[in-house]
Amino acid sequence: MSTSTSLRTQVAIVGAGPAGLILSHLLADAGIESIIIDQRSREEIESTIRAGILEQGTVDLLSAIDPHTRVHTVGHRHDGIELRFQGEGHRIDFPGLVGRSVWLYPQHEVLKDMLALRLSAGQDLRFGVTASSVDGIDTDRPRVLATTETGEQLVIDADFVVGADGSRSVVRPAITGDARNGYFREYPFAWFGILCEAPPSADELIYSNSENGFALISQRSPEVQRMYFQCDPDADPNAMSEAEIWETLQARVPGTTLQEGPIFQRDVLRFRSFVAQELRGGRAALVGDAAHTVPPTGAKGMNLAVADVVLLARALDDLLTRGDERLIDGYAETASSRIWKAQHFSWWMTSMLHVQPGADAFDRRRQLGELRSVVESEAGRTYLAEAYTGWPLA
Amino acid sequence: MSTSTSLRTQVAIVGAGPAGLILSHLLADAGIESIIIDQRSREEIESTIRAGILEQGTVDLLSAIDPHTRVHTVGHRHDGIELRFQGEGHRIDFPGLVGRSVWLYPQHEVLKDMLALRLSAGQDLRFGVTASSVDGIDTDRPRVLATTETGEQLVIDADFVVGADGSRSVVRPAITGDARNGYFREYPFAWFGILCEAPPSADELIYSNSENGFALISQRSPEVQRMYFQCDPDADPNAMSEAEIWETLQARVPGTTLQEGPIFQRDVLRFRSFVAQELRGGRAALVGDAAHTVPPTGAKGMNLAVADVVLLARALDDLLTRGDERLIDGYAETASSRIWKAQHFSWWMTSMLHVQPGADAFDRRRQLGELRSVVESEAGRTYLAEAYTGWPLA
Repeated sequence: MSTSTSLRTQVAIVGAGPAGLILSHLLADAGIESIIIDQRSREEIESTIRAGILEQGTVDLLSAIDPHTRVHTVGHRHDGIELRFQGEGHRIDFPGLVGRSVWLYPQHEVLKDMLALRLSAGQDLRFGVTASSVDGIDTDRPRVLATTETGEQLVIDADFVVGADGSRSVVRPAITGDARNGYFREYPFAWFGILCEAPPSADELIYSNSENGFALISQRSPEVQRMYFQCDPDADPNAMSEAEIWETLQARVPGTTLQEGPIFQRDVLRFRSFVAQELRGGRAALVGDAAHTVPPTGAKGMNLAVADVVLLARALDDLLTRGDERLIDGYAETASSRIWKAQHFSWWMTSMLHVQPGADAFDRRRQLGELRSVVESEAGRTYLAEAYTGWPLA
Repeated sequence: MSTSTSLRTQVAIVGAGPAGLILSHLLADAGIESIIIDQRSREEIESTIRAGILEQGTVDLLSAIDPHTRVHTVGHRHDGIELRFQGEGHRIDFPGLVGRSVWLYPQHEVLKDMLALRLSAGQDLRFGVTASSVDGIDTDRPRVLATTETGEQLVIDADFVVGADGSRSVVRPAITGDARNGYFREYPFAWFGILCEAPPSADELIYSNSENGFALISQRSPEVQRMYFQCDPDADPNAMSEAEIWETLQARVPGTTLQEGPIFQRDVLRFRSFVAQELRGGRAALVGDAAHTVPPTGAKGMNLAVADVVLLARALDDLLTRGDERLIDGYAETASSRIWKAQHFSWWMTSMLHVQPGADAFDRRRQLGELRSVVESEAGRTYLAEAYTGWPLA
């Protein structure tokens, strides 16, 4: 026999990822109550391995939320990246060009911080609760129907529902009619990613364009490194030996000798771009991966989620505290403006750095002409650095 | 009965376009003698309607060649262009961004100036002479075989042969083996160009991206205007009525009302990119359209030819006057560096501004995201302005 529980809150947030957690904090700051549900356990959330680059604006926000945030102690400030092609590295000096930096701080660390912070602040945050549907978004009392791990039915009545529940969002179809309604692009390649036990091979990220394909040399900690190389989207992560993986990586960063070590995780990340057809419908809105997906080359994923919730928190404050609908009515357009610039930047970095299957000698030389145009021009480097370190938050 | 005449010179230049004429001037300045041949008559050359935008560096060079050049009296300095999309114009302010400008001065005017100048300086310049082949480029005495209009055979023995003879170059196969050897790209659209009797519709060029396709609103004189719109490469220039042409153009520059007038010339310009496999072989080299073709969107055609001959003149001076082979040995690589940046810029402007056949809603929105990224960023506008006004000449 199943039981049903009714809950009442101002904002029902589906998803306890960075978007949902940060949103709940910003809302609480404005005196707005929320409930967050997530189908995963706290342990699962805290072990989600995702993007690790935080824009200056994201770090500024995390620092404002918690002056003692570990981003400054556990994370690492990166003052540049290297673009490598034709065997030579070209540094993009972020502070010198745009007065900003980025931080390498893995997303699961942000999640640990934010979960601890929200729970200690008394946030109503329920793990293992799976949203099944959202209704009433065209009324003033939308609601989320959900099921707990023990099979209990949960009904959350709210003034507003936020879908922060990732790319397989349950909230999205309530807004867009069909979860697939939107703008979609699949790329003809993927990243083969590894985690290995080795010292860092470089102080900063190396984005390497080589004849054999793209590679990204990244870092995680003094003992563990993250590296990627362009591969076929259907590649089997277990088909290559460790020796073959290192041979592939080394060949793609000519001029740099990689520090090798035991590989303890491997995965194949497919490249997709997606933007939902609508970002808001009545009393519901989408943020983060529920609203959009970007390929990882531009390091925009989590940062775009943060930009969404900064906008949405302000709009919900106006709507729920002051009854002013202007910001929420403009949310989709304002958020879209940044989202499409980020989609372009991610597409641009991807197409400038990867070898496109079927590319001919003209494409290859044009691509090298583009890379040289960017690195030889202070304006070109600045244009790239502005986007990489993040446009100002609204 | 055909007769044969032998000529001897230091540099045999095939082609009396801007590249060949300017090269002969620069060589003469260095005390190097040349003979130019061209299969066309002087009248044909002077009536060739081609690109009309001169980079700052090209104008500086023409001014150095002739302080009274008509580029400053008949031509018009343009201090910017307008990028138009979603019904709004965004000016790229060249002097404000990069301290340089461009000049609108049609290529046939440059040709009139340069022909008069070279002939009055006593240049050996032969019209109606068709080169048939080039041989001996791997010796110190290459030669050009040609035929005059009256059927006379001409043999030009030289120290060096320059192919400045356009995209159907006769010199190119002597260097690359086959005239088609190179890097090639054809685009799935063309420009429908018109000349009309009307006052200017704008002070500066308008590059307009619209849902219906690209349009370029250009100028020629106070009474005659040049305009283009994206069309199918197989379009028949005579299939549209004047009313249909104006309707098409007006729809592609929403927000601007075009000044209409009788259309007295129409043409369809196909879009191609090409770079010859080799730019120099032994005692022969290629310049201008013989070496490369760019789509017109970046306004690079004639300017790239000028950049080639500035490099080559210096290299030939070192080679022929001082016996120093270093610059000529580096010519292909040095010229290629600029050529591929220009190929990229032309491709970039083309793909950012045109509607690609088969583009979906994602492509369209990404493209608008790109246009906004560029115009909203001073660095983005500067990066574009640097390329449009021209990178510094070597």
